[in-house]
Amino acid sequence: MTQWYIENGPESDVVISSRVRLARNFESYPFSSKMEKEQEDKVLSKVKNAMMNVNGIINDISKDDKSIMRDVIFVDIKNLDVIEKQVLVEKHLVSPEFVESERINGLLISKDERISIMVNEEDHLRIQCLFPGMQIQNAWKLCDSIDSFIDSKLKFAFSKELGYLTCCPTNLGTGMRASVMLHLPALAITGYIRGMLDACSKLGVAVRGLYGENSEASGNMFQISNQVTLGLTEEEIITNITNIAFQVVEQERSLRKDLFKQNSFRLNDMVFRSYGIFSNARIISSDEGMKLLSDVRLGIDMGIITDITLETINEIMLLIQPANLQKLAGRLLNQDERDIMRAEVIRGKLAKA
Amino acid sequence: MTQWYIENGPESDVVISSRVRLARNFESYPFSSKMEKEQEDKVLSKVKNAMMNVNGIINDISKDDKSIMRDVIFVDIKNLDVIEKQVLVEKHLVSPEFVESERINGLLISKDERISIMVNEEDHLRIQCLFPGMQIQNAWKLCDSIDSFIDSKLKFAFSKELGYLTCCPTNLGTGMRASVMLHLPALAITGYIRGMLDACSKLGVAVRGLYGENSEASGNMFQISNQVTLGLTEEEIITNITNIAFQVVEQERSLRKDLFKQNSFRLNDMVFRSYGIFSNARIISSDEGMKLLSDVRLGIDMGIITDITLETINEIMLLIQPANLQKLAGRLLNQDERDIMRAEVIRGKLAKA
Repeated sequence: MTQWYIENGPESDVVISSRVRLARNFESYPFSSKMEKEQEDKVLSKVKNAMMNVNGIINDISKDDKSIMRDVIFVDIKNLDVIEKQVLVEKHLVSPEFVESERINGLLISKDERISIMVNEEDHLRIQCLFPGMQIQNAWKLCDSIDSFIDSKLKFAFSKELGYLTCCPTNLGTGMRASVMLHLPALAITGYIRGMLDACSKLGVAVRGLYGENSEASGNMFQISNQVTLGLTEEEIITNITNIAFQVVEQERSLRKDLFKQNSFRLNDMVFRSYGIFSNARIISSDEGMKLLSDVRLGIDMGIITDITLETINEIMLLIQPANLQKLAGRLLNQDERDIMRAEVIRGKLAKA
Repeated sequence: MTQWYIENGPESDVVISSRVRLARNFESYPFSSKMEKEQEDKVLSKVKNAMMNVNGIINDISKDDKSIMRDVIFVDIKNLDVIEKQVLVEKHLVSPEFVESERINGLLISKDERISIMVNEEDHLRIQCLFPGMQIQNAWKLCDSIDSFIDSKLKFAFSKELGYLTCCPTNLGTGMRASVMLHLPALAITGYIRGMLDACSKLGVAVRGLYGENSEASGNMFQISNQVTLGLTEEEIITNITNIAFQVVEQERSLRKDLFKQNSFRLNDMVFRSYGIFSNARIISSDEGMKLLSDVRLGIDMGIITDITLETINEIMLLIQPANLQKLAGRLLNQDERDIMRAEVIRGKLAKA
């Protein structure tokens, strides 16, 4: 089973992934911060039992969604070592707080890692669906199916006035965060990214960099997501984010064409220099790795680099993150060791490709 | 016939080439600066005639030297276009002043370009012999053969007190400049180069960078040569320069080993990054090209890069010089065009290798 992040989805020249997450709490239990250990344990086992028995479920869930849901397995966070925990964080399957939490908690994930459900995070449930490319509608549909399924077994806390009740008021209403991860090298190179960010925030959309420890948007990867969860329907939020994302995608595409038209030699040179370092260097830091990967990804989309696929780049992007490197090595690595291992992994993957 | 600069000579890990040149004037003519056109013409045709008829020459010239001398052809500088003139300069076969001179002048060169004799430069004759690697003794031997041969036909201006008479007093005596071109990346990287330069100048040896338009020693290539021509015999000058060159060579070698021992990953990384850019970039400036070439050359010597030979690097070093690029293109190129062509030539040569 291919994990979602290696596949390419629609608009994969610019859109890396789409994600929807729903915050939910059960009406018969207090919010996580007020729960007793015993209650935590009960919530966890109830959700686990429900999700482990998706057979014979309600009818309005599509066959595809059902089959992904049937693949869900349970992961006991307490049984994971420090590297395994960090790998989940790097895959965006859990929050950093979740793996460090003292609560009785657990994770439900599907084998393709499209579904991840954190139990006893800030809210009782954080239902998340991740899809490659521009598939925010599909991510929402799957989230909705899971939501309906669990709600049919265990009643969620819901107010007619406020919608779904959440621990933090910023999630009230729909409890939904819909986001799209975009690769925006041309906007970054030309400097138009700043104006784009300003425009987004005026439209109630948050933008933040991804994967960067030091820089704000390492590898020119940006995530846009809705800021408002209350006063709009789920469909309105999805439509809104989708429309804005498509506008950004079109702007990025048009700037890429401009860059090529203005000076194709310069662009070729930039891409091939990065490719040359990417495929030859013996020590590559996290930030540099993402910068080089960004240039190479752009080069593939522009037809400048033809012997590497976007799938290979997607895989490398994940594999060069610190915990994934340590998982590969089978042990903890210090920063120097990681930088050497990162260069090794990149060369290995490119040589295979 | 392989031109000398493509071959590898002894100590080619550090020594690129050895050169000896003799300044000579004929006793029956005034110095170049005082000559009439008619006299220039006579000097030129006499030397030309002598060198075009090396058959049946005096006995104390070795068979090898004779065979190179028989290969000498005449080049009329006035018939060359601007690119061809510049190519000769880049090959160090003529001085920049020589190709721009208003005098009636001419060049005698052997097909392997080991011998070049400028007629009517600052002195009537500048006899130069160039050999790959550390072969200063061989270069001197060949120079000496040519000198003896011409002297046997056309008497040189010589004073028992001052030795050979030259136009500029700095050449008086032996009229000899012996030089060795060295590749000194480890001395440069570690910063010990400054101390080495100081020591050389105290020993009466001049050091200067080669091939650099902007920087003093582009590509970490340094030429060391004798400053004093008077009061020493030719043999003493040759021995002196040879000894100093060997000391520098040993220092460079020992520093290369230290660099590798201290941090082989760092060194590998530096070499492979440069190789990656060298073999992939689409635009490479003259200075950057020499810098990258220096790193790759070091990498080959250290056994880090194994699929490229020093011969290929020697050839590239010459081919990426401005006039050589324009000769390849068959037309004048502006700087941007040269930078693109330079990257193309490098990729082409590396792909073949």
